[in-house]
Amino acid sequence: MTAPRALIVGAGLIGTSIALALCQDGWDVQVSDHDPAAVALAADLGAGHPWDESSGTVDHVVLAVPPSAVAASLLEAQRREVGRTFSDTSSVKAKVLAEAEASGCDLTTWMPAHPVAGRERGGAARAQADLFRDRPWALCPTEATSSEARRWSERVALACGAQVVELDALRHDRVMATVSHLPQLLASALAAVTTRLEERDLALAGTGLRDMTRLAAAEPALWADIVAGNAAEVGAALELLHAELGRVAPTGTAEGTEVAGLVARGNAGRARLPDKARAARDLSWVSVVVPDRPGELARLLLAVGDAGVNVEDLRLEHSPQHAWGLVELAVEPGSEEALCAAADRGGWRAHPAV
Amino acid sequence: MTAPRALIVGAGLIGTSIALALCQDGWDVQVSDHDPAAVALAADLGAGHPWDESSGTVDHVVLAVPPSAVAASLLEAQRREVGRTFSDTSSVKAKVLAEAEASGCDLTTWMPAHPVAGRERGGAARAQADLFRDRPWALCPTEATSSEARRWSERVALACGAQVVELDALRHDRVMATVSHLPQLLASALAAVTTRLEERDLALAGTGLRDMTRLAAAEPALWADIVAGNAAEVGAALELLHAELGRVAPTGTAEGTEVAGLVARGNAGRARLPDKARAARDLSWVSVVVPDRPGELARLLLAVGDAGVNVEDLRLEHSPQHAWGLVELAVEPGSEEALCAAADRGGWRAHPAV
Repeated sequence: MTAPRALIVGAGLIGTSIALALCQDGWDVQVSDHDPAAVALAADLGAGHPWDESSGTVDHVVLAVPPSAVAASLLEAQRREVGRTFSDTSSVKAKVLAEAEASGCDLTTWMPAHPVAGRERGGAARAQADLFRDRPWALCPTEATSSEARRWSERVALACGAQVVELDALRHDRVMATVSHLPQLLASALAAVTTRLEERDLALAGTGLRDMTRLAAAEPALWADIVAGNAAEVGAALELLHAELGRVAPTGTAEGTEVAGLVARGNAGRARLPDKARAARDLSWVSVVVPDRPGELARLLLAVGDAGVNVEDLRLEHSPQHAWGLVELAVEPGSEEALCAAADRGGWRAHPAV
Repeated sequence: MTAPRALIVGAGLIGTSIALALCQDGWDVQVSDHDPAAVALAADLGAGHPWDESSGTVDHVVLAVPPSAVAASLLEAQRREVGRTFSDTSSVKAKVLAEAEASGCDLTTWMPAHPVAGRERGGAARAQADLFRDRPWALCPTEATSSEARRWSERVALACGAQVVELDALRHDRVMATVSHLPQLLASALAAVTTRLEERDLALAGTGLRDMTRLAAAEPALWADIVAGNAAEVGAALELLHAELGRVAPTGTAEGTEVAGLVARGNAGRARLPDKARAARDLSWVSVVVPDRPGELARLLLAVGDAGVNVEDLRLEHSPQHAWGLVELAVEPGSEEALCAAADRGGWRAHPAV
């Protein structure tokens, strides 16, 4: 049986990660990019080999290019008969579909797709074969989409370890506007607002602000493309956000009960969000103070493991100026005492979050 | 030498954490609360003993009560001569100062203070002696504040391991509006907006939304009190946020370059924020896939430690449905290869984030 053959167009974070995963799954993978250096890096990382046009038509082409480039890339790839089936990775779908149709692409061989994963910073160098494992991979077929295009795009998603979610392009864009594009704009806007503060004032910032601005390290050009490609839905999501915030602003007079209502609605929304599957299992957290030296965390985890306690999740908080850190360990409810006892025996200070 | 004597009024997360820290530092600590059950829990946690009014005047009283309750609590404590000096923990300062002055409190014996730390959920049960370690502890003295009040409030902050930051009340409130109150409202509003989505749509949500809504699990009544106590500054911060977002909304037509500008300004703001001191040292991250079974993470860390590599930070990403997890380890730049080699020798798959 010959290996399935794929061409990945675009050796950025997404394309290279897909290429890595397909290579690990035994596919014959080629990579192309307008930047030869990106292709060389991807090849060095083990993400396949540079595209050789003379090698013939491949089974599936993944167009891992920015939203505004999908239609043109698809048209060119189809005209050159580079592959038999195609999918893309764009995080906006309806506009890309319209552009592909308008520019004369063959809609039967193309599955509009969106693997929902990423990292704050892009580029082939940040690629990981595991990037999509257990993450959603949206497929947005149209009536024209052939069963062959569907089958190959599903194979790619499954080879990457992703969970296929099928929904139409409009619904996809509406959901992404709320769960991805709006959070990005808020993180960017919040980080931008903090620039009004002086450097010394930022010493008062805590973990909340850090979490809320993590996404703000994103690529301006890519996000301009994404938001422009989903402008109506992003606008609608922003309107909803303004409506929520409008009750406490902009007059500057915040009425207590309205803020309480907003925070309570936020409680409800937060409670509905899928968390890590493990976290949803109502884990118990125990905090342990450990000296900050090589092997100390390992010794703690060994002691905990020896006590028969499985650590389900772990957070590490370094104290910047002291020679120790705070480790938060999540265990099955009922295992806290065994964990604390094991930590105590080893000379660590354990604090169950009662 | 007799131990310093403190009374903590309010056995919530903040008060109980301060009480725990002072106890560990050898203070004689009493705790009071309008809820006797909270006092009993705090005492059981080792946070001192229930307040005995007949025990006489203490050196310092910490009023760990909500912002709107500070002035009344201070007045009562001063009239009953419960302590010689006082501080509070309110996250808004100017309004509390005005209320204390208007209600006839003695401003000389009181240091307006704000230990800047917390957890998503409150209550004595979540208290930790380490809660304030290396976190900022704002002191906002007025011209009236006595040197004795300053000295005792500093002693409390230092006993908790905190870093004293002195600034006036107005500046404090302006900074907190941006670094704390605005992020809270945004997290709540974003989480509230997600309620328009159907349950199945939330499967498309990623880590970005999770980070951006973590604060949304906050207490409505407490935050209503905080925002009401800092209404003008929160309003001003919201105006700035609206101005940032206003360039991409509400028309629904997002102009690419404006979004790019917003994201770029966010890049700049994010880059200025203090991160964990270690993270700011430009650590190198390596991802390692480990089987999800007891002791496996410990074995990996031991192998890494044996190779002489110190793990500076660690993030754990469980895959919900597979028997393994992804561990991201941060090491000093230059140590990635040694880490990867150690992992490879142990049979793990390591991915340096090149």
